[in-house]
Amino acid sequence: MHIARRCERIAPFHVMALLERAQQLEAQGRDLVHLEVGEPDFPAPAPVMAAARAALEAGATRYTPATGLPALREAIAGHYRDFFGVTVVPEQVLVTPGASGALQLALALCVDPGDEVLVTDPGYPCNRHFVELVNGRPRSLALDPAAGLRVTASALEQAWGAGTVAAVLASPDNPTGNVLAPDEVAGLADTVNGRGGTLIMDEIYQGLNHEQRPHSVLAHTDQALVINSFSKFFGMTGWRLGWLIVPEALTEPLTRMAQNFFLAPSTPAQHAALAAFEPDTLAELEQRRQDLDQRRRLLLERLPATGLKVVGEPEGAFYIYLDASAVSDDAFGFCQRLLEEEGVALTPGLDFGAAHEPGRYLRIAYTVPCDRLEEALMRIRRFVESSA
Amino acid sequence: MHIARRCERIAPFHVMALLERAQQLEAQGRDLVHLEVGEPDFPAPAPVMAAARAALEAGATRYTPATGLPALREAIAGHYRDFFGVTVVPEQVLVTPGASGALQLALALCVDPGDEVLVTDPGYPCNRHFVELVNGRPRSLALDPAAGLRVTASALEQAWGAGTVAAVLASPDNPTGNVLAPDEVAGLADTVNGRGGTLIMDEIYQGLNHEQRPHSVLAHTDQALVINSFSKFFGMTGWRLGWLIVPEALTEPLTRMAQNFFLAPSTPAQHAALAAFEPDTLAELEQRRQDLDQRRRLLLERLPATGLKVVGEPEGAFYIYLDASAVSDDAFGFCQRLLEEEGVALTPGLDFGAAHEPGRYLRIAYTVPCDRLEEALMRIRRFVESSA
Repeated sequence: MHIARRCERIAPFHVMALLERAQQLEAQGRDLVHLEVGEPDFPAPAPVMAAARAALEAGATRYTPATGLPALREAIAGHYRDFFGVTVVPEQVLVTPGASGALQLALALCVDPGDEVLVTDPGYPCNRHFVELVNGRPRSLALDPAAGLRVTASALEQAWGAGTVAAVLASPDNPTGNVLAPDEVAGLADTVNGRGGTLIMDEIYQGLNHEQRPHSVLAHTDQALVINSFSKFFGMTGWRLGWLIVPEALTEPLTRMAQNFFLAPSTPAQHAALAAFEPDTLAELEQRRQDLDQRRRLLLERLPATGLKVVGEPEGAFYIYLDASAVSDDAFGFCQRLLEEEGVALTPGLDFGAAHEPGRYLRIAYTVPCDRLEEALMRIRRFVESSA
Repeated sequence: MHIARRCERIAPFHVMALLERAQQLEAQGRDLVHLEVGEPDFPAPAPVMAAARAALEAGATRYTPATGLPALREAIAGHYRDFFGVTVVPEQVLVTPGASGALQLALALCVDPGDEVLVTDPGYPCNRHFVELVNGRPRSLALDPAAGLRVTASALEQAWGAGTVAAVLASPDNPTGNVLAPDEVAGLADTVNGRGGTLIMDEIYQGLNHEQRPHSVLAHTDQALVINSFSKFFGMTGWRLGWLIVPEALTEPLTRMAQNFFLAPSTPAQHAALAAFEPDTLAELEQRRQDLDQRRRLLLERLPATGLKVVGEPEGAFYIYLDASAVSDDAFGFCQRLLEEEGVALTPGLDFGAAHEPGRYLRIAYTVPCDRLEEALMRIRRFVESSA
C-alpha cells in the first residue's frame, strides 16, 4: 500500500505522551494539576446550553447550508460591528467545523503544491500540518526571544521569500499569550499586502484580551482571511464550530470547497451558537475573562520565584510561555520529571515548533482555579529546588 | 492574492441552483415535491435524541480524544461483529467529523501530488474533490450502462493505470442504489490488492439494503479503508459524525492527522451516537428501512409509465437513477423545466460525473412519504406527456 509522504511530516502532539502518563498516574490515585490542555475549565454558557436543548426539542438536527445557518452568519457579522467596530456582511462569513475547518479552507484556497507558507515558530502546532495537507511547504518564521517571541513586520518582511504565498499569524497568540497592538497588526497586514500574499489571521483568542480591547485585523485591511471559533472565548470546545471571514469575492470558491469537504457544520452546534451573542451570554463570558485575568496575575506575580522566566507579555488567551533554561537544559525532560515527581502537567515547547530552541521552553495553560494554580506553583518550586 | 489551481477544478453542486430556485418558488406559495436531497425525512431516532439530551444535562461538551470516545470506538467495533459478522478491534476505528472527515483522512493517507485515484463515474460528487484537496488526480472510472452502471472487477482492472494508487468505490451506491453482492466485492478487493493499491470502500448506505443482508468489504480483506457514517442508516445527518476502519498498523499515522486536522469529532454527537446501536434504536431503524423499501417498490412499479427508465438494480440506499433519454436529450434542462412547470425537484446526472453521459440521467431520492411520491409520479407523467 502506498503511504503519502505527508504522513511522515505530520508530527504527533508531544504533550499526548505526557497526557497518557498523567492518566496512568491518576488511575493510581495521584492528585494531578493539569496545566497542559488548551481548553477552559468552564462549561458552555447557560444560554448556549438552553438553545441547544431547545434545538433538540424542535428536532433541528438536519443538514444546514454548507456555509451555515443564514441567521448565524448574520449574528457573527453583527458581532464584528458590536465587538470589533468593523463592518462585515453576512456573505463574508463562512461557518465551519471548528477553526480547524476554517484553517483548512483558507489554506486550500491559496496553496498550490510547493508554495511556501510562513508559520510562526513557536506557534499553533496544527498550522504547518494543514500546509502539508495541501502539499505546501511550511516555512518557520522563527520569533526573536529578544522581542519576547513577538512577531514583527520587519521579521515577516525578512522571512518572506520568492515562493511565499501566505502567512499564518495569531493575536492573542498561542503559546505566548502575546497580544498585538493595532499598529503592529496594521504593519503586518501592510507587509503581506505589499508582497501580494495572503494574511491568514488567527483570532480565536480574541475576547480573551486582558489589557486592551478586542481588536480584529479587519480594522486595517479587507484582504485578510480571519479564522475564529466558538471554542475559546465562547467556551464551546467540544461542539466543533468556528468561522472564516473573507473578502466577498472569495465566498463563491470557498463555498464550493465547503460543500465538498464538509457538506455543512454541525446543526445542533449552530443552533446553540445562535445564543452566543446574547447580552446574558456576553456578560457571563466577561466574568469568565476576569477570572482568567485573576489567574494570570497570580502566575505573573509568583512564577519568578520558581526560576521559570515569563516570556514576552502574556496579555491574552490563557497561556504563559516560560523559559526554563535557568533550571534545565531540556524542557521536555523537565516536563516528564515534573509530572512523575510532583504531578504537575505542562506542555513542552517542542509542540510549538523546532526553530525557536524549543528545548528552552514550557507552556502553562491557566485553565484551573487559583487554588490549584497555587498548589502547582508550590510543587514547581519544590521540584526546581530539589533538582538544583 | 494567489488562488490555488484546485479552486477552478472543484465544481459546485448543480443541484444547488435548482434548490435555490425551488426555495423561491416555495416562497411564492408553490407546493414542491423534494426528491433531490440525499437526506432521509426521519428525525434522529428517539434513543439517540434522549442520549443527546442526557449528555447536555451532564455538561459533556468538552474535547474528546482525537479519534473519538473509547466507548464509541468499542460500540462501533461491536456493530461490525453483530451486524456484519466481521472482527474489528476498537483500535481500528477512528471516529471522524462525518464520512467527509473519514474520506479526507483516507485520501490524505495515500495520495501524494500527481497520484491517480479512480473514482466511479457516476459516483458521489465529493470524492474527486477530496482527491483535488490533496493534489491527486481523480480519474473517472466510467461505468457501463450495459452493466446497469455497476462497477465490475474487469472494468476496475482495465482502468487501473501505472500512476493509480487507490480507488474509491461504494456499495450501496449513490446515485444508482446498486448493491454489490459478496462475490463482486471480493473480486474488487482482490483486484486492488493485486495491484498493491488501496481500496477505499464507502459503506455509508450499508443497513439500507432492501434485498440482501448488510455486508462489508471487511468480510473479504483486512486491507481496505472503510468509510461509514451515522448520517444515513442511523438518521443523524446534521450531527456530522462518521468513522473510518483501517488496518491496525495505519491507526498511528491517521491519529496524528486526525489530531491536527480535526482536533476531535463533535462531543455531543458522539454521546448521542452511543445510543445508535441499542436494540430499540436498531428496531426503529429497521422499521424505517421497511418504509423506504415500500417507497422504492412503488417507484419501481410506477416509473416505467412516465417514460423515465430505471438504471441498474436499485436495491439499496434511497436512490433510483433514471435514464431520461427517451423523453429528453438534456436531463439538466428537463430538471429545470420540471421544477418550473410541475414543482418536482430532482438531481441532474451532471452532479455525479462528466464521463458517463450525464445529460441522459436524473436521480430520485425517495425521501418523502408514498403519497407525495404518487403526487410526484402524476406530475412527472403529466409533464412528459405535455412536452411530447
